[in-house]
Amino acid sequence: MKESKKRPRVAVIIGAGDATGGAIARRFSREGYVTVVIRRRLEALAPLVEIIQAEGGQVHGFGCDARDEKAMIELFKHVEDQIGDIEVVVFNIGANVRFSITETTERVYRKVWEMAALAGFLTGREAAKAMLPRNRGTIIFTGATASLRGSSGFCAFSGAKFALRALAQSMARELGPKGIHVAHPIIDGAIDTDFIRENFPDMYARKEQDGILNPEHIAEQYWQIHCQPRDAWTHELDLRPWIETF
Amino acid sequence: MKESKKRPRVAVIIGAGDATGGAIARRFSREGYVTVVIRRRLEALAPLVEIIQAEGGQVHGFGCDARDEKAMIELFKHVEDQIGDIEVVVFNIGANVRFSITETTERVYRKVWEMAALAGFLTGREAAKAMLPRNRGTIIFTGATASLRGSSGFCAFSGAKFALRALAQSMARELGPKGIHVAHPIIDGAIDTDFIRENFPDMYARKEQDGILNPEHIAEQYWQIHCQPRDAWTHELDLRPWIETF
Amino acid sequence: MKESKKRPRVAVIIGAGDATGGAIARRFSREGYVTVVIRRRLEALAPLVEIIQAEGGQVHGFGCDARDEKAMIELFKHVEDQIGDIEVVVFNIGANVRFSITETTERVYRKVWEMAALAGFLTGREAAKAMLPRNRGTIIFTGATASLRGSSGFCAFSGAKFALRALAQSMARELGPKGIHVAHPIIDGAIDTDFIRENFPDMYARKEQDGILNPEHIAEQYWQIHCQPRDAWTHELDLRPWIETF
Amino acid sequence: MKESKKRPRVAVIIGAGDATGGAIARRFSREGYVTVVIRRRLEALAPLVEIIQAEGGQVHGFGCDARDEKAMIELFKHVEDQIGDIEVVVFNIGANVRFSITETTERVYRKVWEMAALAGFLTGREAAKAMLPRNRGTIIFTGATASLRGSSGFCAFSGAKFALRALAQSMARELGPKGIHVAHPIIDGAIDTDFIRENFPDMYARKEQDGILNPEHIAEQYWQIHCQPRDAWTHELDLRPWIETF
Repeated sequence: MKESKKRPRVAVIIGAGDATGGAIARRFSREGYVTVVIRRRLEALAPLVEIIQAEGGQVHGFGCDARDEKAMIELFKHVEDQIGDIEVVVFNIGANVRFSITETTERVYRKVWEMAALAGFLTGREAAKAMLPRNRGTIIFTGATASLRGSSGFCAFSGAKFALRALAQSMARELGPKGIHVAHPIIDGAIDTDFIRENFPDMYARKEQDGILNPEHIAEQYWQIHCQPRDAWTHELDLRPWIETF
Repeated sequence: MKESKKRPRVAVIIGAGDATGGAIARRFSREGYVTVVIRRRLEALAPLVEIIQAEGGQVHGFGCDARDEKAMIELFKHVEDQIGDIEVVVFNIGANVRFSITETTERVYRKVWEMAALAGFLTGREAAKAMLPRNRGTIIFTGATASLRGSSGFCAFSGAKFALRALAQSMARELGPKGIHVAHPIIDGAIDTDFIRENFPDMYARKEQDGILNPEHIAEQYWQIHCQPRDAWTHELDLRPWIETF
Repeated sequence: MKESKKRPRVAVIIGAGDATGGAIARRFSREGYVTVVIRRRLEALAPLVEIIQAEGGQVHGFGCDARDEKAMIELFKHVEDQIGDIEVVVFNIGANVRFSITETTERVYRKVWEMAALAGFLTGREAAKAMLPRNRGTIIFTGATASLRGSSGFCAFSGAKFALRALAQSMARELGPKGIHVAHPIIDGAIDTDFIRENFPDMYARKEQDGILNPEHIAEQYWQIHCQPRDAWTHELDLRPWIETF
Repeated sequence: MKESKKRPRVAVIIGAGDATGGAIARRFSREGYVTVVIRRRLEALAPLVEIIQAEGGQVHGFGCDARDEKAMIELFKHVEDQIGDIEVVVFNIGANVRFSITETTERVYRKVWEMAALAGFLTGREAAKAMLPRNRGTIIFTGATASLRGSSGFCAFSGAKFALRALAQSMARELGPKGIHVAHPIIDGAIDTDFIRENFPDMYARKEQDGILNPEHIAEQYWQIHCQPRDAWTHELDLRPWIETF
């Protein structure tokens, strides 16, 4: 009993490879959470781990393929056994691709789903298993415009994001009354990432006028979702730059 | 120029008659906003005005029928001329009634719309007029479950709440790119008010387990919406007790 | 009993002033329904009445302001008393206007709502009163793109159309289990009308390639909705030209 | 040219194993379409093939696992090469299961998606490939309540059905302007099938009062969707028994 009180609170970020995942990890770290950051290739995590440590945080980086059931079960078990109580889990893996329907291969369709939906399911399920005995915790799935709308050329990506939204809804309805807060913020706009800067320079140019999302502001929102008292939980909200059309 | 810097920032709460409107006014008051609180009968505002003053806030109460175009135009003009820059406007008038379709009178159908939609339109328009020259400000319209779903017996109430949601969407799309943040939080559950305590005791009994919304937590959310940086604005979010089915 | 079997079946079209309302009336007339066609000014109904009669149909035209409760009550009573059993009621009044929020007058906001929502409510309620004793009938409210989305500049029109959709949902949930089929088709595109031809010539030019809706095809759909067996009723469907973006 | 006029019109039904798929095949057969009916096990198709033949129709049954990309490519190629022009494709495979999130295995989650979404993608893609050169055709994906709502216990099923809806939307937006009509009817209620009779007797008891959907009425609706002229296409509609709550 005494011991359990001392157990650290842990925030697990699945998909900490981009600016958003990193900002979320740092945000929770600043609040005293031990952060566990995950991406497929461990090496690629080094910069984030160093930043969090430089900011005084405790951080554990793991290379793990979130589509691998066995690896995910072990990961969550390891964190609970060796690191602390998982209080927050953020699933932040995207897989944005665009192909016409006839040029979408089975391999692409399946892979996008595995990355953005199956991995979300494994994350959500293992998070639920860890949290249910304590009847507390927050699970956040990152949504996108494609979560709400199947646009031309996005059958694979929106298929996966729609499926992730179904997961978030289903889990919220099942787990809410058991004390677990499941949320699904929808990022409706470009984020200030290397990917956007390199591939969509016109979009990136909107940054000067705050026309793309700052990852730290997304992270702040995730922190606030986690802080909501249980009489006033949000399941879904949109986040969008002021000049974004919708 | 110098003078304008000194002008107080004002938060206007239309429909400050219930627990929610009052909590929102107090929340913005605590942040240094001069609050302008409105309800139909001025006398009924006295307790709220006293509380805000006792908490050290500057507050102005006005009795004003928000369905009266002329009165609303004058009110906003007076506030801008005599009190300060309107930075936040919250429209918080509800009009929840339930009747079968054949027992809904024209008078009820019209009155509910005038209170919950027409008054919202007048509020939003006058708020926009005040804010547009400065290209800044936040306008929040309070939504409800009935904003999303026309349930049996709620043709009048959901008609008005649907209309208010259309207004919020239309204004958000028009005014967002002009620097004005329009939001539409959806309160999906009972709020801890006298009305619920007296009329729905079973619902009120859920309070013990945080099963009804605390007005102060709603107010906190409204404050956070106002604080969002313009690269990451929320237009719509739900707020719901953890045990509420949806 | 014998007498009631002989009573004619009646289809009432409120808003028979444009091509769509006229086509719907003719469609039901061809199936043997006595049609009752309504628009504000009786004179303007003459061409439609003549066409239906020339096609061998029985038709009654009434000039009636659908926003006038007393007039609507009398109209429905008169039809039931003097003409036959009201089996189908179609509400087809639109009121499409576009103004920026600050240029939307209270008069416009109210008038659009009165035409497109209040008149719909009065129509729906009087239809329900006529149909409930027989536990049968079909009530169709014509929706539009603006029923689903509050676009910039459409606060009045989408406010009214959102309200009409709430009405349709609420009535469907209340009246379905009483044998009355309430439907809300959403016309998502321009219709081949004089209004479009005169005001939106670019849009009208799409007619050559079937890019605008043919009123007779809308009418066919309404007829099919009415024909659905009660184990498979549609409440909402979209109708959209093949080249329309959505 | 002459030859191509003589080629038979073909309707392909993927998932012709249950009452609904069978009724749809028979409906198109009655209109003179050569039907190609598919389910995993060929033997199980025999009764349906016999009925269609007895009704005077031309029918081809194939055993084919719709999750198998290679098999599906071959199937569509064979039909186009040997049988006729594919004008209609209906994807009708369901996979309704219910498990709590912690009891949903990776195997179940994946299998449900493969059956209800991946197979739909392969079907839709091969259908598009066949139809695009002719710029005509109808593709219908059968939706369910779970397509719109992630209910507790349905993370796998609603995940797959949400993904299928995204596919239908994306394909409709891409292929509509190329002359191909993509529709997604949502069956919101129990259907009169052996499965419901055996597993949900209470639900089945509603049949007496038309409280469950008659497969033939669903088939009629699919036929009508196919018949819609291209200026008035429906993408989504609900089908629901009159007494079903929603």
